[in-house]
Amino acid sequence: MLNQDIADFLVRSRQCEIEGLEHLLATSIMVGRIRALIHGLQRERGATNLFLGSRGQCYAERMIEYRREAGIAEGEVRAHLVGWLERPRCHTAASRFFAHVALALHGLGELSRLREKVDRFEISAPEAMERFNDLVRHLLAVVFEAADPVSDPAISSALVALLNFMQGKELAGQERAVGVAGFGLGWREEALREALMHRIDAQERCFQIFSEFADAATLIRWQQLSASPLTAEVERLRRMAFTRTLQGDSGFELAQIWFDQATRRIDAMKSIEDDLEQVLHDLCETRLVRAHAEWVDDEARIAELAREGGASLPVGVILGYPVDAAASGVLLDVERQHVMGGGVGRSLIELVQMQSRRLQSVEDELRAAREALEERKLIEQAKALLIKHRGMTEDEAYRVLRKAAMDQGKRLIEVARAAIAMAEVLGPKF
Amino acid sequence: MLNQDIADFLVRSRQCEIEGLEHLLATSIMVGRIRALIHGLQRERGATNLFLGSRGQCYAERMIEYRREAGIAEGEVRAHLVGWLERPRCHTAASRFFAHVALALHGLGELSRLREKVDRFEISAPEAMERFNDLVRHLLAVVFEAADPVSDPAISSALVALLNFMQGKELAGQERAVGVAGFGLGWREEALREALMHRIDAQERCFQIFSEFADAATLIRWQQLSASPLTAEVERLRRMAFTRTLQGDSGFELAQIWFDQATRRIDAMKSIEDDLEQVLHDLCETRLVRAHAEWVDDEARIAELAREGGASLPVGVILGYPVDAAASGVLLDVERQHVMGGGVGRSLIELVQMQSRRLQSVEDELRAAREALEERKLIEQAKALLIKHRGMTEDEAYRVLRKAAMDQGKRLIEVARAAIAMAEVLGPKF
Repeated sequence: MLNQDIADFLVRSRQCEIEGLEHLLATSIMVGRIRALIHGLQRERGATNLFLGSRGQCYAERMIEYRREAGIAEGEVRAHLVGWLERPRCHTAASRFFAHVALALHGLGELSRLREKVDRFEISAPEAMERFNDLVRHLLAVVFEAADPVSDPAISSALVALLNFMQGKELAGQERAVGVAGFGLGWREEALREALMHRIDAQERCFQIFSEFADAATLIRWQQLSASPLTAEVERLRRMAFTRTLQGDSGFELAQIWFDQATRRIDAMKSIEDDLEQVLHDLCETRLVRAHAEWVDDEARIAELAREGGASLPVGVILGYPVDAAASGVLLDVERQHVMGGGVGRSLIELVQMQSRRLQSVEDELRAAREALEERKLIEQAKALLIKHRGMTEDEAYRVLRKAAMDQGKRLIEVARAAIAMAEVLGPKF
Repeated sequence: MLNQDIADFLVRSRQCEIEGLEHLLATSIMVGRIRALIHGLQRERGATNLFLGSRGQCYAERMIEYRREAGIAEGEVRAHLVGWLERPRCHTAASRFFAHVALALHGLGELSRLREKVDRFEISAPEAMERFNDLVRHLLAVVFEAADPVSDPAISSALVALLNFMQGKELAGQERAVGVAGFGLGWREEALREALMHRIDAQERCFQIFSEFADAATLIRWQQLSASPLTAEVERLRRMAFTRTLQGDSGFELAQIWFDQATRRIDAMKSIEDDLEQVLHDLCETRLVRAHAEWVDDEARIAELAREGGASLPVGVILGYPVDAAASGVLLDVERQHVMGGGVGRSLIELVQMQSRRLQSVEDELRAAREALEERKLIEQAKALLIKHRGMTEDEAYRVLRKAAMDQGKRLIEVARAAIAMAEVLGPKF
């Protein structure tokens, strides 16, 4: 009877691990839907910028085409998200997730009005860009809040790589829009240069974290893109933005060249992002199939041990090899084979200890992945604080944080942490 | 129809917040049961030590009385824990929680055998103490894994204060047992002195964190205990342990004096711990009652807004005050009153934004609480790594970490983090 209790809790522990995998598999499918919508909105944002910048002379057709595609993706996202209302989740994370979905849905609901204003030139290019940025930010927040790390280092790494790549790609999309405005105005406004620099810096940080966590094949694709003539051309245009002011009408022509180059680069990113999602999805599925197979065997064994009171038998009796060797841990690989192969020869308490040990050791490996996820959230939070309490724009907030980091010789995340801590000391009113 | 979607997700976000509170209320009840069992085991451990140390001359009756009391508490814990099998939880945290419950149940199942060995003097005092320590460690781990922080800073602070106090009290209990052994042997073994010092150091760290997060009334009770003659007497005996070796039979007499004084101090701690639990419990209940009341009003209002399409109306129309004032954030207190009072005059999107803002701002305040919880876990993990991979005892592991911290002029947590990072670099085999 007592052994039955132990067995029940062991079974629940394993079930929760499996449910965590299933949840992440579902998340990877949601990510696919939302990525398609974000990609569509990014393109629409760029085309809208050129449309408004040219007073409707250019890009009207492409803009309408992009709107149509975004509309299809939007329908799929809406249909998909409704299914998440009933999904069991960690309460605190879930309340944030649902709030972000509500904000994202509201932003989507406002799209048609935004588009009408664009068509009638009732909104400026920077304002329109800001509205698209907000919407994409809410959509990214939905994905980030949905993604609970699971007890599997390879899967969590794939997740971190994908999320950081998505964030980096969005910054590249914003860079494209800023660049269009900057070239259009001949880079005569310092604020636009700084906005461009912020997007480039922040992008690089995202892709650096991506590189630390990505699988080898995708990493190679990324390195190939980084070393391609396409990227070299983008770099040349970036350099032009930082070193020259343009005369006369050459600006708008360059804006179009910039838009096309940046778009080709972002489309290439999209293809790498597709790979990352596929890797995550495949890892989840493979791991789930294995977990279910292991589980069928283990469950039967646990039930049997619980009945026969296996936990009370001396370890050696059940194991069939010397107790000392088992205790010293040298048999860890053998043990693992046993469990993979169906848990033959385990006592109940050993199964419990192995479960606990497995969760502990992956915990250590997961720390790095968690911290990388945490890092992005911290910097976003510090920026949000400055925006909210100091009335700064996002660019200004980023500049203040980056400057503080450079002045103090610290990492950006340390400054972000300090800024948040300071807010706590000074109270919620800051 | 679109507004209905937004409303659904807003409702779910609020529901999850409430479910988080309910979960923590349930946790506070479980903590009460487990605390009673831990307190009983702590007393049994101390009495067992004296019983074995005196070769059965002393404390036999008290030991049996303590066993009886621990037995009652054990039955209540067992009955209570079974209810947690069906509780929905965050998957990854839940798998660790259930694994720890299985380990704790196994430890409880072994208790009767341990007691038989004690009665027949088949186990040494240090070994018996180690077995009790392990069991209490598993029970504490159950509590720590069950405790998900919620989106309420006051409640999370109360939780952090309670958990750190429990850990500190357990270290005081271990100190009592080490002291009994040390006085019994006349403090002629340096290892026992070091074990004592470790327990005192680690206790102080726990009580320091407790002090940072405790409510004012409980903090005063703790300060009164710290300044009491009772604590002064414990300090006098501690000093004796560090400065003298004892001659002849005086050791065992002093061991009993030490045991009685330390027990009085620990019993006083138990009473403060009771207060902490009550504070947590009351905060959860009050907050839940308020949340439910707010909710009844909000839910009706949200449903109404969703029907009438309130999200599409200009903000000012619904609000009844200037849009600019609302946008600038100066009306935050007024807004709060509105929501507390039933969400009168809110548009749907404003309710969504307020929900999102509330979750964001408590998030900032929660960080400190989370980090304090995290800190303990990190140090425990670093110790576990050293124990597992370097074959150290718990005391040795702690000494190594503390020495490294002192040598490098760093905080213990920084060294712990570095140790864990190093383990990752060197791979799971360390």
